[in-house]
Amino acid sequence: MRKSRKLNRGVAVVGVGMSNFGAFPGMSSRDLFVDAFKEMRTSVDKGFDPKEIEAFYLGNFSGDLFEGQAHQAPMLADWVGLSPIPAARLEGACASASVAFREGLLGIASGMYDMVMVGGVEKMTDLHISKVTDALATAADITYEVSAGFTFPGFYASMASAYMHQYGATPETFMRVGIKNHENGALNKKAQFGARIPDLMEAKKTKALQKGKPIPTWKDEIEFLSDDRANPLIAWPMRLFDCSPVSDGGVALLLVSEEIAHQFSDDPIYVIGSGSASAGALHSRPSLTSIPSAKLAAQNAYEMANVTAKDIDLAEVHDCFTIAEIIATEDLGFFDAGKGGIAAEEGLTSRQGPQPINTSGGLKSKGHPVGASGAGQIVEIWKQLRGQAGERQLDKSPRLGLTHNVGGTGQTCNVHIFERR
Amino acid sequence: MRKSRKLNRGVAVVGVGMSNFGAFPGMSSRDLFVDAFKEMRTSVDKGFDPKEIEAFYLGNFSGDLFEGQAHQAPMLADWVGLSPIPAARLEGACASASVAFREGLLGIASGMYDMVMVGGVEKMTDLHISKVTDALATAADITYEVSAGFTFPGFYASMASAYMHQYGATPETFMRVGIKNHENGALNKKAQFGARIPDLMEAKKTKALQKGKPIPTWKDEIEFLSDDRANPLIAWPMRLFDCSPVSDGGVALLLVSEEIAHQFSDDPIYVIGSGSASAGALHSRPSLTSIPSAKLAAQNAYEMANVTAKDIDLAEVHDCFTIAEIIATEDLGFFDAGKGGIAAEEGLTSRQGPQPINTSGGLKSKGHPVGASGAGQIVEIWKQLRGQAGERQLDKSPRLGLTHNVGGTGQTCNVHIFERR
Repeated sequence: MRKSRKLNRGVAVVGVGMSNFGAFPGMSSRDLFVDAFKEMRTSVDKGFDPKEIEAFYLGNFSGDLFEGQAHQAPMLADWVGLSPIPAARLEGACASASVAFREGLLGIASGMYDMVMVGGVEKMTDLHISKVTDALATAADITYEVSAGFTFPGFYASMASAYMHQYGATPETFMRVGIKNHENGALNKKAQFGARIPDLMEAKKTKALQKGKPIPTWKDEIEFLSDDRANPLIAWPMRLFDCSPVSDGGVALLLVSEEIAHQFSDDPIYVIGSGSASAGALHSRPSLTSIPSAKLAAQNAYEMANVTAKDIDLAEVHDCFTIAEIIATEDLGFFDAGKGGIAAEEGLTSRQGPQPINTSGGLKSKGHPVGASGAGQIVEIWKQLRGQAGERQLDKSPRLGLTHNVGGTGQTCNVHIFERR
Repeated sequence: MRKSRKLNRGVAVVGVGMSNFGAFPGMSSRDLFVDAFKEMRTSVDKGFDPKEIEAFYLGNFSGDLFEGQAHQAPMLADWVGLSPIPAARLEGACASASVAFREGLLGIASGMYDMVMVGGVEKMTDLHISKVTDALATAADITYEVSAGFTFPGFYASMASAYMHQYGATPETFMRVGIKNHENGALNKKAQFGARIPDLMEAKKTKALQKGKPIPTWKDEIEFLSDDRANPLIAWPMRLFDCSPVSDGGVALLLVSEEIAHQFSDDPIYVIGSGSASAGALHSRPSLTSIPSAKLAAQNAYEMANVTAKDIDLAEVHDCFTIAEIIATEDLGFFDAGKGGIAAEEGLTSRQGPQPINTSGGLKSKGHPVGASGAGQIVEIWKQLRGQAGERQLDKSPRLGLTHNVGGTGQTCNVHIFERR
């Protein structure tokens, strides 16, 4: 197998839009996507005519199971006035949107299109909550993984307990990821749980936090999070606040060929690396503390972009569970194997740290509408690189950003690298 | 919106493989795809190393609903030994495989890949038959189409009754399509119902056909097909033998860039045209007797290939219902509007006629494993153009072939044009 290589044409992202992420009874995928599309339209610095969009690539995990509606790409295209352009749905479980993004990229590089829209959408909260975990489990391997009695919290709990065993991490190590992501998400108005954990705890009316007390330290937060009533165990060592939520949300991105990017944008964000890899089921891998498809996708993306992990200023990684973020920061090469947990404990991945991770709040705080999440990551990178991330803007004028989006237990992983020039 | 244009690189199909189509209890999508993959391997004239395959594009409509297994692209890639290559599932309802084929084409044209595998798979018969029509209905618009009380037989029955009203066709017009496709399918060992209609009738132990009688004429067949017991009404005027079956099946195709095609094949089949279009729901269209996305996809494909309908030697079209084939032959420009029915009656679309349609047996006789059907069409065109279609081989040494694959009620349509040089 050859490695990834340069595309025949460069591609830039010139517009992004995102609905609120959360639970929105009465809104379908179409409604959520319209919100994203409208915001994307206004985000293009120099404006554009939607009739110039030549194709639509939609990430959607399973409208089939969540809404009883498959085949959503042409329907969403119609809903935002883009019929009769080609419209394709791509599915790679929770990595669906980054699969769609990669194909949008190739679509432009192929010469077929100059401008495409990439979207992601998922409407998860219509399905009765008792069935959501089963619907998500269809993203895992039903023959080898699910039949062993696992659903996703169990898979990632296995990775977490292996990580504890192998590297001496503790449940507190994982909690530090959640605390940090909720601190970031508290500055993101679109986040589903956009609040610091103490505030969320208060909202849950637990007795762990009294009104009027001084703002708690992270040590206080750990104490709250260790309370079984406040933060029940889901699958040891993963507790409620180690898990990303069930969410509704939509995202729209506008991609154009590099040559014409400045016709639309004062400050286009260029896609300089794209890596994608697949894998078999969990049992066939040498270790539970690393995801091989992520390592390979990262390697291919770095090679294509001609950069290394050290060059990346910020990253949005796939923190479906807190352990997943720690493993991601190692698979991406930000930290050595076994050091990601320590890095989280030491605050190296906070907004103030040297390697900021999930400044948006991540899936944990922002929400995880599975087919949209990978596109939501790109929204954050785009805004941070352009200096438009508001209260959560990084100080250091980031130039290179990365997204890492995982499907299943790692059957799919896509890594993309973005540059501000 | 721009029209489709030339790709940055040409692409050829150098291998094809297909499982039997039918109902196979005990076989999953993985098993079906393995059969297709193995045959594809042996079909490559000069051989190849599967490790050279750089990416996998899978068409699959809804493993989610049919098998409780989404995310099948990486799992099938693993199953045939191709991990860790990028693996994407594409879904465009019954056009899923042609959506995957188009993206495979763009993947090579983009410069990212030199060799990709495109597949299609569906395992429909595990789901209880009472739920299959509901599962298929998720490919239609649940807000505008299904909520009006329609499932697919109803949609196409509406098109058929409109066609009768507008052009004076009769139920017999539609029956002629089924008779012709079963005649073709009787020569296709992989077809699900690979037998002429009288033989199928006999197998159903109807009294309409007595053993030992001379082979019936098409007039006899019409008589059988008009018998309500032998051929029950599904949705007037569509009877059982106007409907494609519920099927299991898998297909694998090997695509390479034009420059290297002769390294693998003595006789590569070049993809010279690709058109794709989308549409909104049925109620928003001006007419029930034409599918606008099909007309546009055809127009774009012809322009890209620089040919017209008159140049096409044979076509595989999407005959999910007999009326659909008639409309397809008009939308593709083979016959004027309203003349496709007459053409079918006059035998113009038979293997001996000037415009052979569905020499494979079509979805009607060969079977319609929905996510695989569009790739199955390409198998037939590839074999016919290479002179390898066995008993059903066309005499006229066809040079240009076309595939037409529709999703939903026409929300998606893809047209591809293939050339033997």
